[in-house]
Amino acid sequence: MSVSASLSSLMDHLCENGVDCVEMLPAINDAHGGVIVDMKEPMDPKLFATLLRASISKWKEQGKKGLWIKLPIALVNLVETAVKEGFCYHHAEPNYLMLVQWISETASTIPLNASHRVGIGAIVLNNKKEVLVVQEKSGRFQGLGVWKIPTGVVDAGEELFMTAIREVKEETGIDTEFVEVLAFRQAHKLFFGKSDLCFLCILHPLSFDIKKQDLEIEAVQWMPFEEYAAQPFIEKHEPYKYITEICLAVQRGYAGFSPRPLTSFFDEQMSYIYVNSRDLDNSISFPDQS
Amino acid sequence: MSVSASLSSLMDHLCENGVDCVEMLPAINDAHGGVIVDMKEPMDPKLFATLLRASISKWKEQGKKGLWIKLPIALVNLVETAVKEGFCYHHAEPNYLMLVQWISETASTIPLNASHRVGIGAIVLNNKKEVLVVQEKSGRFQGLGVWKIPTGVVDAGEELFMTAIREVKEETGIDTEFVEVLAFRQAHKLFFGKSDLCFLCILHPLSFDIKKQDLEIEAVQWMPFEEYAAQPFIEKHEPYKYITEICLAVQRGYAGFSPRPLTSFFDEQMSYIYVNSRDLDNSISFPDQS
Repeated sequence: MSVSASLSSLMDHLCENGVDCVEMLPAINDAHGGVIVDMKEPMDPKLFATLLRASISKWKEQGKKGLWIKLPIALVNLVETAVKEGFCYHHAEPNYLMLVQWISETASTIPLNASHRVGIGAIVLNNKKEVLVVQEKSGRFQGLGVWKIPTGVVDAGEELFMTAIREVKEETGIDTEFVEVLAFRQAHKLFFGKSDLCFLCILHPLSFDIKKQDLEIEAVQWMPFEEYAAQPFIEKHEPYKYITEICLAVQRGYAGFSPRPLTSFFDEQMSYIYVNSRDLDNSISFPDQS
Repeated sequence: MSVSASLSSLMDHLCENGVDCVEMLPAINDAHGGVIVDMKEPMDPKLFATLLRASISKWKEQGKKGLWIKLPIALVNLVETAVKEGFCYHHAEPNYLMLVQWISETASTIPLNASHRVGIGAIVLNNKKEVLVVQEKSGRFQGLGVWKIPTGVVDAGEELFMTAIREVKEETGIDTEFVEVLAFRQAHKLFFGKSDLCFLCILHPLSFDIKKQDLEIEAVQWMPFEEYAAQPFIEKHEPYKYITEICLAVQRGYAGFSPRPLTSFFDEQMSYIYVNSRDLDNSISFPDQS
């Protein structure tokens, strides 16, 4: 489709009644008094600039607040124009860039971009009181010789408990069943200045034969828990001391948060709520869990 | 500084020994076998294209893996060139765009962008068994007439427990002390397709006189807990039923996760770990907490 044909089709619906026909970019209203332009077809940057200026002027008249433009990476030649017309970046994914501009006199209510990377650390204990540990090939632990629990990052759209199961399987070959989240840590200014939430999880092993992943993992083993905990690095560093303390507390009946399926009230989507199931289900007294 | 002067200063350190002097973009090595180009000064797009091509070729020879280019929004005129030379978007903040390209034969280990927005819901109960509730002016709850607990989003770099204290203060004027996280929910494909982690928190009120925030809040009140829980919307929707159930369980001794300061092992940065403090500190038996 040529640029002019594409433009013509974009304009059609705006001019249906033949009056008050202003050449504007096609936009849909959002739920917060703003508009979203989802550019899909190529457009000459000069034409884009002209239409964008006319559109902004009209949106101001209409009392719009937030203006959004989503540009697929194939339309990278329009980014500079959007920025020159007052847009800032909001967020980007590999294949698109979202730009935003607040044109209202009222305080901006532009929602924040995703702020946290989410990860897991996985404690897998077998019935010989051995813990599943790895040595990593790269990153911060490279060359330290430390045996540590498997860790990993939640993929886009992945359930937290599935991340734990997946990472253990990928790094060690061990199948597991998720038990619960024992703790979590929030830290700031890590990767790209973003924050990080890391969930310490405990899982039951369902298999025992190790199959090491070669790309990231130097070595894997089942290690007696006492030996793991006695490593100088683990003893010396506060976050690792907590892991050890919490592992010991689990044997005394420490309760974490376990996932329960939940249906969203607005869109019927399934999600998970993590609660202290023992305390939620129990009545007043706490019977010995051992 | 002129483009050529700027370029000349960029090149200086590469040519110090007078041999093997290749005109390349200035880059620093990352900890994962890649390089980061942090562009700060303006550059002619044609010169940028020439240097980028030469640099990529050299980095390939050197066996580099991930290539990163950070472009401040003022250098938006270089974005198209970077994309034409094979870069994709990685992430963006209002004032810069990060681009990335994987040039190794090995599987890409480019870290994921921030994937989650993090929020809180704040339960504030006074000693008359009343809960602090609000009606919201906009968003999903607009016009529903539902009295709900204050909610809000974690600002960049903000501690989770501080978000809860801040949001309660902003929306209602009530000062609070953070007690603990009672549960959390992970949901997917919400704002811009990103995931969401919402932490249900409980706080003790330190003041009682309500000062409503006008921008987002229609009304605020202390409401008898039974009356809050008996609202049809709250009774009907699963996530809200959980809030009610957990509030009731708190009165029977439900333990959540409370924050404890923690020092990072690598950079000495302070962060917080959230643990079941009651179970971690207790010995084998669980005394009655009531």
